[in-house]
Amino acid sequence: MLELKHAAPAPDGAVRPEAASGVWVPAATPFRANLAIDFDRYIAHCQQLLADGAHGLAVLGTTSEANSLDLGEREMTLERLVKAGVSPLQLLPGTGTSSMGDTVRLTRHAVALGVRGVLLLPPFYYKNVSDEGLYAYVAEIIKRMSDKRLALYLYNFPQMTTVRWSPALVGLLLQDFPDTIVGLKDSSGDEDYLDTLLERFPGFAVFPSSESLLLHGMRKGAAGIISATANMNVAGCRALYDGWQGEHALDLHKKASAIRAAVSPFGWIPGVKAILAARGGKPDWARVRPPLDELSDQQKTDLLAAVDAAST
Amino acid sequence: MLELKHAAPAPDGAVRPEAASGVWVPAATPFRANLAIDFDRYIAHCQQLLADGAHGLAVLGTTSEANSLDLGEREMTLERLVKAGVSPLQLLPGTGTSSMGDTVRLTRHAVALGVRGVLLLPPFYYKNVSDEGLYAYVAEIIKRMSDKRLALYLYNFPQMTTVRWSPALVGLLLQDFPDTIVGLKDSSGDEDYLDTLLERFPGFAVFPSSESLLLHGMRKGAAGIISATANMNVAGCRALYDGWQGEHALDLHKKASAIRAAVSPFGWIPGVKAILAARGGKPDWARVRPPLDELSDQQKTDLLAAVDAAST
Repeated sequence: MLELKHAAPAPDGAVRPEAASGVWVPAATPFRANLAIDFDRYIAHCQQLLADGAHGLAVLGTTSEANSLDLGEREMTLERLVKAGVSPLQLLPGTGTSSMGDTVRLTRHAVALGVRGVLLLPPFYYKNVSDEGLYAYVAEIIKRMSDKRLALYLYNFPQMTTVRWSPALVGLLLQDFPDTIVGLKDSSGDEDYLDTLLERFPGFAVFPSSESLLLHGMRKGAAGIISATANMNVAGCRALYDGWQGEHALDLHKKASAIRAAVSPFGWIPGVKAILAARGGKPDWARVRPPLDELSDQQKTDLLAAVDAAST
Repeated sequence: MLELKHAAPAPDGAVRPEAASGVWVPAATPFRANLAIDFDRYIAHCQQLLADGAHGLAVLGTTSEANSLDLGEREMTLERLVKAGVSPLQLLPGTGTSSMGDTVRLTRHAVALGVRGVLLLPPFYYKNVSDEGLYAYVAEIIKRMSDKRLALYLYNFPQMTTVRWSPALVGLLLQDFPDTIVGLKDSSGDEDYLDTLLERFPGFAVFPSSESLLLHGMRKGAAGIISATANMNVAGCRALYDGWQGEHALDLHKKASAIRAAVSPFGWIPGVKAILAARGGKPDWARVRPPLDELSDQQKTDLLAAVDAAST
């Protein structure tokens, strides 16, 4: 790890990777009884997702409980994936923290590994911050990185951060850093916000966070999705992505949306993990890190019944 | 730093420091033009606060912009203070992050330095978390620390965290970890919440975050205050703390409250720093880290006029 942290600057001729598109899965992170990451299970899950049709993995985001991992665990997660043979170009890790320095550390590490890009949360401790303050934050990160390989995807999730990448700010960042600001993941679920971005910034790689917005999004120029429930229905998401212009598009949309809707009342993270636990016959897949709560046995039973009903 | 991170367990016979009381200042953190901490100015400020009557320094909290500092900077800040001769028993640093592992790292480092205690934010990324999840988080930190010297002060600031230490949870933690849970800083400004804690848990070291609640709090058994505006009016806060049972208590209360109220509309962090800049003739004291914004020249002029008017 130490060598990577102090990695040399980008090699001569280094270029920014092509923008991501398709179905990217925010892979859930399994934990052992002592709450350490179960890397064997994690890597097997990630490889299965890719085998089942994921275009890539948006690892270390909210669904991955990345903000409950320490900085070293976040770095090690990427290193283990690459060491296991996952192409860095199929990785779009979250590197945002509440602090600029820690964010630069994680971003530098990820870019040195050759990832497709990084998902950047706004700094999420201080509230009621201005667009000017957020602009200064992003500009300073880009300056400190000073690396042509850097591809930034803004990560919008106001329900968690209470801080939003406003369309006006996105426009300003795109204008001033056209070689670095590549896309945005929108977890707000706000269709107006999504439409505004898609209409105002053609070619900007926007990913809604739900397969229920995939068909709508693709019709308006979205790049794909990054969805928690793709952890347990990647094939359905991929079929919809591949078939959105085909005659079965609406059926595929309804099917994938119904499965997602069945998980929603249980909470994405404990819900997705409980399903992975049941399907794999590995009950401890359901474990989450505090402050999150694992589902109760009754909730797990109800969740599985709801997903089964939606899947038939 | 590395030695401290891997510090040996508590020496035999190690005991928890006595509970803090009095006026503790969440010292503001000055930055150089490149946004690095200006340690010389910082240490001079901290020493001046102690000379002017602060009982101690609640460093590395919200006012200190700690959540905009990286982990290494947070450790270095404590080390520099101790090296400069500040007694660790006069330090009550914030060590909370959104991740358990990073929080344990900072807490271990602080406790190894011999601090009076640490202020613990709840994990603040995930929202709508349960009391059970927060209990598990604190219990796991205490277990991982496994250090008799650890004195935890819960840090309640729902306006920043959207996560609250409920009175029920505080009661449960006090019951199950009576040797570790020592106090709470309440930055909510919610007088009902403050009164509930003071009535329900006598002897628990509760610090409201404002001198305007100091007189009220002391009458009900508060331990003191930890207030942003003590950065620029520590003498007034100390006089009120010393004189709260005396004949001038109400006058001292009104005076300190008026000065605080003059700063409030400008935002505590940029406001306090702008005043320190003007008083010391050092304009760059007013600098803040993104995503916060420094006050404009006009705001600075208005702020100083308001504080002058309140001070006469």
